[in-house]
Amino acid sequence: MDRLILGIDPGLANTGWGVVHQSGSRLACVAYGCVSTSAQHDLAARLLKIHDQIGAVVRRFRPTCVGIETVWFGQNITAAFATGQARGAALVACAQGGLEVGEFSPKQIKLAVVGTGGAEKEQVQYMVQKLLSLEEVPRPDHASDALAAAITFTTHSGVAEHRLAELVAQAERKSA
Amino acid sequence: MDRLILGIDPGLANTGWGVVHQSGSRLACVAYGCVSTSAQHDLAARLLKIHDQIGAVVRRFRPTCVGIETVWFGQNITAAFATGQARGAALVACAQGGLEVGEFSPKQIKLAVVGTGGAEKEQVQYMVQKLLSLEEVPRPDHASDALAAAITFTTHSGVAEHRLAELVAQAERKSA
Repeated sequence: MDRLILGIDPGLANTGWGVVHQSGSRLACVAYGCVSTSAQHDLAARLLKIHDQIGAVVRRFRPTCVGIETVWFGQNITAAFATGQARGAALVACAQGGLEVGEFSPKQIKLAVVGTGGAEKEQVQYMVQKLLSLEEVPRPDHASDALAAAITFTTHSGVAEHRLAELVAQAERKSA
Repeated sequence: MDRLILGIDPGLANTGWGVVHQSGSRLACVAYGCVSTSAQHDLAARLLKIHDQIGAVVRRFRPTCVGIETVWFGQNITAAFATGQARGAALVACAQGGLEVGEFSPKQIKLAVVGTGGAEKEQVQYMVQKLLSLEEVPRPDHASDALAAAITFTTHSGVAEHRLAELVAQAERKSA
């Protein structure tokens, strides 16, 4: 299997995105970035920017699927509403590109990337770097979280599980 | 002042919309409807439908502004997140049409339409019917709520306040 997977970490102020290439059980980072919008701009203009820039990523890299995090229940209702709007704007762009959408809870993402649902943020970032053979942790955190969502999509298709298990074992030996 | 105002009541399952014509202090209903999406469809497909159908309304009627309700704090976090996504999809369509966006709290809408922030849903519907000289209350409720958001936009521009005060007084005399 050879495909491109988009990952999105939606947020009104910062929407992280990352594109992962999957070839069999090998994963590679193609590109990543973050769409930032200013609170000084109108809400609708901010949402349009998120839609348009994610749309530009979709047209440029032509991924066939997208992994995206579900609501984080630690958020308050105002934050969840703002994140929801950004997510809606980003998903419209994904639907326009015909992408298959995979929604994952924070726990599913941690489980897929680190091997344990209770992993810390730093462990997720470390594993994203290792799994994608990057020289450093992708910045900002939103981009790293987006790549984690893309990686989770690969594990949920069952293909990359072996490779992940191997890397998780490596990481565990290292931290022991 | 002569203009068309769109009102939106966003929701993932049902997004109500309504177009109000304002000529000085006179208001008239141009059209209203509701975009319904099925839970059997993918989330992204549902959001795209909301975006596309609100976009079609914008292109057909060419309103210059839109009134939309803010989050209703009686919702739980999951409902707020779903509504937020629908709102994001609808606002992208509005931004693409260059509409000025007015966001109003449920209390502001009740205050603008009925004259009291603690008004019941039925009172809002009754006043929407009266203010727009409709023969019956617009159905479904989502369309009526969307028209209420559009009416609120007119009052916030200050122009229709006199007309509203007049109708509120009429309604009060009637219910007394």
